Amino acid sequence: MSTTVSPLAPTTVPDMPPIAGVRLATAAAGIRYKNRTDVLLALFDKGTTVAGVFTTSKCPSAAVDWCRAKLKGGQARALVVNSGNANAFTGKTGKQATALTATIAAMATASTPARIFLASTGVIGEPLDATKFDGVMDGLVADAAPGGWLDAAKAIMTTDTFPKVATATVKLGKARVTINGMAKGAGMIAPDMATMLAFVFTDAPLSAAVLQSLLKTGVADTFNAVTIDGDTSTSDTLLAFATGAAAANGAPKISRASDPRLKAFAKAFQNVLADLAEQVARDGEGARKLVEVVVEGARTTASARRIAMSIANSPLVKTAIAGEDANWGRVVMAVGKAGEPADRDKLSIAFNGIRVATRGARDPSYDEKEVSALMKQDKIQIKVGLGLGKGRDRVLTCDLTKEYVAINGDYRS
Amino acid sequence: MSTTVSPLAPTTVPDMPPIAGVRLATAAAGIRYKNRTDVLLALFDKGTTVAGVFTTSKCPSAAVDWCRAKLKGGQARALVVNSGNANAFTGKTGKQATALTATIAAMATASTPARIFLASTGVIGEPLDATKFDGVMDGLVADAAPGGWLDAAKAIMTTDTFPKVATATVKLGKARVTINGMAKGAGMIAPDMATMLAFVFTDAPLSAAVLQSLLKTGVADTFNAVTIDGDTSTSDTLLAFATGAAAANGAPKISRASDPRLKAFAKAFQNVLADLAEQVARDGEGARKLVEVVVEGARTTASARRIAMSIANSPLVKTAIAGEDANWGRVVMAVGKAGEPADRDKLSIAFNGIRVATRGARDPSYDEKEVSALMKQDKIQIKVGLGLGKGRDRVLTCDLTKEYVAINGDYRS
Repeated sequence: MSTTVSPLAPTTVPDMPPIAGVRLATAAAGIRYKNRTDVLLALFDKGTTVAGVFTTSKCPSAAVDWCRAKLKGGQARALVVNSGNANAFTGKTGKQATALTATIAAMATASTPARIFLASTGVIGEPLDATKFDGVMDGLVADAAPGGWLDAAKAIMTTDTFPKVATATVKLGKARVTINGMAKGAGMIAPDMATMLAFVFTDAPLSAAVLQSLLKTGVADTFNAVTIDGDTSTSDTLLAFATGAAAANGAPKISRASDPRLKAFAKAFQNVLADLAEQVARDGEGARKLVEVVVEGARTTASARRIAMSIANSPLVKTAIAGEDANWGRVVMAVGKAGEPADRDKLSIAFNGIRVATRGARDPSYDEKEVSALMKQDKIQIKVGLGLGKGRDRVLTCDLTKEYVAINGDYRS
Repeated sequence: MSTTVSPLAPTTVPDMPPIAGVRLATAAAGIRYKNRTDVLLALFDKGTTVAGVFTTSKCPSAAVDWCRAKLKGGQARALVVNSGNANAFTGKTGKQATALTATIAAMATASTPARIFLASTGVIGEPLDATKFDGVMDGLVADAAPGGWLDAAKAIMTTDTFPKVATATVKLGKARVTINGMAKGAGMIAPDMATMLAFVFTDAPLSAAVLQSLLKTGVADTFNAVTIDGDTSTSDTLLAFATGAAAANGAPKISRASDPRLKAFAKAFQNVLADLAEQVARDGEGARKLVEVVVEGARTTASARRIAMSIANSPLVKTAIAGEDANWGRVVMAVGKAGEPADRDKLSIAFNGIRVATRGARDPSYDEKEVSALMKQDKIQIKVGLGLGKGRDRVLTCDLTKEYVAINGDYRS
């Protein structure tokens, strides 16, 4: 945890209501950090369904392998998350560590390892000593209580500068249901740390298949539309748990993703993901500005996404924004290198609503002073019009500052 | 031009012999810079053939458009290069500027615009005032002489910290022929500047098609295997000119790329390109370390290239090297995100010849002190073994330092 909170941190933290069927507890197991919590247990009532999406890395962590395999069962009894060690690139030892952790948690919760979900974040390549969970697990189970959401979000931080939580309440049928979420750090956040982790919890009675469908749909324009440095972690994990406890209040059981009663819930679910994803961007390493890249008029939505990502991952665009420079020449460069259909002479570019380039050349009415003043704001929107079709997409990122280099390069010196 | 020369600059500059049929001159046209040359004229004898490869950007500069169209003729009378203005994203004005520049040069050299080749490097989006060439062109033609290669390389610099030249002499048939080359700055080098430019000249009698074939083959493992920041310029241009003057000394005329007499020449040509490309990496923005990424055991060569590029473009790998940290966890991450076949449990990684990871986990004999000492060297090799096949490739890059951010972000503040 950093002592300096990101200047882009949200100014208010939402009150997190309890979710019936979910209890939380945290502990300090001394995995790597001193004087802070580093283990989170989320304990679920019987009947809780689970879904998940994971890193596309070909070198995933042992915990990612574990969760992928166990998702088939669709049922969860507990989630165990540790910070300080990613249990990634740890070979056979890493696989054994996941099995041991799940066994310890299953024994303490009278369950089976197949219903224990795991996530680890921290150093890559160091063996994770899973026996450390043994010393804290019974206490965690005894302490588990419906509150403590912010404490939970703190226990999973590595070099995040603030805990990330979000909540929504929405009607499902005639019953009110709640969605709570938490997340930690964007991409490969910190000195040899890895992992973006996010967990979403609801009392809505949703089948695992419905939950998986909501996740798959929801992640595309939220977490998958955020980039800090283009470096995909070995450990990215987004898990969702639905306890079904709201059925007692009359919430209908939903077992088809196409069920029309799911519409408002799906929107609220997506909003929670979007909120967490934006907080991840706001806590990007060294970030001083939140950057929204909007691409319109592309041939297709997928093409708009690739062009937006090309802009959002360009070191030259990101350093220009750090320097408060509306350097649209670099945006042209990033559009040009994306490998997607683009016609230089139809391109228009705006920064925070002021058009700076149109039809492949500088806007005749461009006023550098006016634009420079806008670039001092802490949220910058880059909007690119391609003029080719109706494809539109949006990506969030942050600027690239010397602090990013310092955080990632200086820590041994 | 920077006042601080890159610490990675070559310690010696080769003597550049003249190339029969090529004459050079430089001038200060005041396009953007004060008190320095900013125009290069290379004047070719009758019969000079030309070939070129260009940026893959969908938003290329006007000069790139011009050269692409004129290459069909295969004949060159002159090359005009300016620094200070890239003539990119300048719309109709930019197109007119290229036509006017070529007309001015054609009139001064008793040629036609179709035989004039152009390259521009500098600011994007500013109209290029081509009338400035009018004031210097007659003087350039009058001054043009066989020497002055280093001066020529200096005139095309933007924020390069040293001029980049290379030369080779080789036998073609029984005659000695010479290959001279020059280049400027890697990728999107500098504060809103764009362009990697390189020019190669020879007196060998090669048809335009042969020259094009040599370029296409040669560029793949030289210029296309260098990355500074992954940001492809709007203006990347590599042109080759063959005067054929060596035919007078008995050099055979080569009109088929498969001609066996071309073998030694092709190798020397490739060496000149490789030398220039390495100099470009050595002058990457803010570079303090030259980084060679070697990937072995990939399924295919193309797969090895993509994995090598994923490593070479990773901000986290590059900042780790700036911090002299053999952070192989980040190399694992970059392999994993490349989207290419990889098996975590077969992966091995070495820094400067010392294996740090093997079979998907830390090398048991890993000695951090030994590796840390090696990381202080100014050339770092990262070698990754995938253990899947025979695909091998190599890419050059540099580290990512605070100076990169300063050069690209701070210049307006």
